[in-house]
Amino acid sequence: MKFDKAVPVQWLAEFTGATLVGNTQQEATGINEIHKVTAGDISFVDFEKYYNACLTSAATIIIINKQVDCPGGKTLLVHPDPFSAYVKLVKHFRPFEPATKMVSDSAIIGEDTHIQPGAFVGNHVRIGKNCLIHPNVTIYDHTVIGDNVIIHANTVLGADAFYFKRRKEREVQYDKMLSCGRVVIEDDVEIGAGCTIDKGVSGDTIIGKGSKLDNHIHIGHGAVIGKNALFAAQVGIGGKAIIEDEVILWGQVGVSKDLTIGKGAVIYAQSGVASSIEGGKIYFGSPVEDAKTKMKELNWIKRIPEMWEKLMKG
Amino acid sequence: MKFDKAVPVQWLAEFTGATLVGNTQQEATGINEIHKVTAGDISFVDFEKYYNACLTSAATIIIINKQVDCPGGKTLLVHPDPFSAYVKLVKHFRPFEPATKMVSDSAIIGEDTHIQPGAFVGNHVRIGKNCLIHPNVTIYDHTVIGDNVIIHANTVLGADAFYFKRRKEREVQYDKMLSCGRVVIEDDVEIGAGCTIDKGVSGDTIIGKGSKLDNHIHIGHGAVIGKNALFAAQVGIGGKAIIEDEVILWGQVGVSKDLTIGKGAVIYAQSGVASSIEGGKIYFGSPVEDAKTKMKELNWIKRIPEMWEKLMKG
Amino acid sequence: MKFDKAVPVQWLAEFTGATLVGNTQQEATGINEIHKVTAGDISFVDFEKYYNACLTSAATIIIINKQVDCPGGKTLLVHPDPFSAYVKLVKHFRPFEPATKMVSDSAIIGEDTHIQPGAFVGNHVRIGKNCLIHPNVTIYDHTVIGDNVIIHANTVLGADAFYFKRRKEREVQYDKMLSCGRVVIEDDVEIGAGCTIDKGVSGDTIIGKGSKLDNHIHIGHGAVIGKNALFAAQVGIGGKAIIEDEVILWGQVGVSKDLTIGKGAVIYAQSGVASSIEGGKIYFGSPVEDAKTKMKELNWIKRIPEMWEKLMKG
Repeated sequence: MKFDKAVPVQWLAEFTGATLVGNTQQEATGINEIHKVTAGDISFVDFEKYYNACLTSAATIIIINKQVDCPGGKTLLVHPDPFSAYVKLVKHFRPFEPATKMVSDSAIIGEDTHIQPGAFVGNHVRIGKNCLIHPNVTIYDHTVIGDNVIIHANTVLGADAFYFKRRKEREVQYDKMLSCGRVVIEDDVEIGAGCTIDKGVSGDTIIGKGSKLDNHIHIGHGAVIGKNALFAAQVGIGGKAIIEDEVILWGQVGVSKDLTIGKGAVIYAQSGVASSIEGGKIYFGSPVEDAKTKMKELNWIKRIPEMWEKLMKG
Repeated sequence: MKFDKAVPVQWLAEFTGATLVGNTQQEATGINEIHKVTAGDISFVDFEKYYNACLTSAATIIIINKQVDCPGGKTLLVHPDPFSAYVKLVKHFRPFEPATKMVSDSAIIGEDTHIQPGAFVGNHVRIGKNCLIHPNVTIYDHTVIGDNVIIHANTVLGADAFYFKRRKEREVQYDKMLSCGRVVIEDDVEIGAGCTIDKGVSGDTIIGKGSKLDNHIHIGHGAVIGKNALFAAQVGIGGKAIIEDEVILWGQVGVSKDLTIGKGAVIYAQSGVASSIEGGKIYFGSPVEDAKTKMKELNWIKRIPEMWEKLMKG
Repeated sequence: MKFDKAVPVQWLAEFTGATLVGNTQQEATGINEIHKVTAGDISFVDFEKYYNACLTSAATIIIINKQVDCPGGKTLLVHPDPFSAYVKLVKHFRPFEPATKMVSDSAIIGEDTHIQPGAFVGNHVRIGKNCLIHPNVTIYDHTVIGDNVIIHANTVLGADAFYFKRRKEREVQYDKMLSCGRVVIEDDVEIGAGCTIDKGVSGDTIIGKGSKLDNHIHIGHGAVIGKNALFAAQVGIGGKAIIEDEVILWGQVGVSKDLTIGKGAVIYAQSGVASSIEGGKIYFGSPVEDAKTKMKELNWIKRIPEMWEKLMKG
């Protein structure tokens, strides 16, 4: 997310209780995860093996749990628990705003857009023109929806990222990362009934122009779906997955987080995608393989008893 | 769907911009997909390989993209884009009617039926007697529900068919087929929480008498589920599948579209049904096989290392 | 469930039309399934092979369909159809109470807890302090929620158990078991959007302290989830499963009913757990195996063609 106005690093240090190292006159313009940072952003790192990636990223202000050499022009906020300091900042800049009615007064809704009864439209939501939001849909704060979009009943846009830091020494082990990203639905998208599309942790979860999603689909935090995608019912996509344009996923396909599916890939029903795969091909299986290869394997399995017999006969 | 009153083909030709061929004095009584047509129906065809099936079907009026010989007594509506002409007709005869309250004044609700708060009941919905509709359920327009039916919270009945025509040459590739079918829930059915049952494209999606569905189940457009079916949670059924009476599907089973599962079949959890299967048997796997055969296969796989060893010694 | 006050067995016999055998002065203090019974409870049995288990259980009053020897101090309620007699009692002691508003007057809601618009809170629900209930959530009657709990939009807590008795001779074959159990959500739990957690048939479905559930998760009736569990999206858990503390389930995992997953087990995506498994290990596959063993199997399958070639060369 980007701040409404720049924030001096000295205020950040004081607010979080961190020690300032490096450029103490800097101003922060936003807050982001490491894979989304741009100049002016605050990011955080708490594992030594990721120090270098974070210090050499585009992030200008880095919350870190050890005093290390500060790269030129950057600012370190040294804090014993960078995760908590980061969460404190998110909570401050993107506080929860309780709703008092089904459609927030701060929502901006385009002409010829129809919001059916029972649909909830949160604060600061923007919906374009000629959209149809069916009953009992829930649209969390800050969601952005383009033109000619249809959202079927009981779908949820913008619930929190499923992202926790585990602290095994505590009784309650999982510490919640607060999300300050958004869900962005581009023009001409249709989303089925009973789907859930989570907001990004700091960036946006995006459903690209013209994509069509069937019912019961889950899209994890920060996933980016390209244009003209077609997903059948009960598909699940993990956080920060990148699905390029024109990908077709058949029913109940599962896709892990942090990977890329190339343009135009087709994946048969119930398959599981555990790592990045090339576009323009057809896949099947859990984990997925080239569909023809997988089909051949299934046939080979059927020939094992025949092989056994041959082997016994010698 | 059937029209409230018959529609002259000359009006249809003018409204859609089609050229009339054959019987020009005909009247249309309804509109249907090819697998559902009856005499008096309008249907459409836009692929040459399906011409014959459509021309020889029960459809009386056929929207077609080429001037061919018209079978005796029938009427052709020759149009460069039959899909669009068909969609224009559906939109005209089954227009979207915005709702203004949670329970429509045009809904007919039987005695001793209880609609819990937050449930949406659309226009022209009919619900029988002694039913219980739990909170935040969404029932789209024209849905029909019998007697003694329980619909658990946040379930959606009658969302649009997931049916698109792809036009690769366009920026927005998928053209939406408008649905004019319905969802019909017969007597004594219970549907769990968070399910979605889509309406048929032109015919009805039917849940047969006495069937029981657990939570998170997806039933695609036009599927016909028999009587006394039992589906466990997270099952997904594709469009126009026919599931005969007394079929039992365990959790997370996926069923493709356009196939038949025979009476009394039992399918174990997480299986995938890709083509029609006989009734009275037990199945397992993705794709499914006879359950015992599949179990044996799984055991044979475990013996591959033993075979390898024999082979190496051999 | 436990009754508000003790109920004489003579009233029970009269109300259900059963014949009293054994101690006729007994009082019942509750009603429970066989795996949950404690002293004072009514339970039922209608299959001869379960007679002994029920008669020797902690249940004090047993509804049974045959006059057998009554264990000392206990009471038998002999009835031709124990299931129906049991259901009649549940209906009497836990009747359906229609709701008239989104948040029941009989619900007790702690301080600093925020109920967003469109959320339904049923009768006799208790919610602790500092909770956040998002829009269009449905919380059925008698649900209990601790402190610091977050329930995301459109999730359903406390829908009925999916539990039926089949009577093949009838036209409508499945007879519904009424549920009188509850859903209990302990402190510091977060539940994602579009989940469904069913109430227990007679006992409680429990989500243990500090557990975090992603979206579209189904938890069956009477399942008991330990502390600090982490379940990814679209997981399904069958009825009465016991998931011990700190279990991690990845996306789309399915777990059968009536089994135990040991503490700290990790199960990879799309796996299926069909029977009890030990804790502290990593699993994969449908049905699950040790993850490394399963991976090796997948590799062996790829070597079948090589084996075939060797075999042919002889």
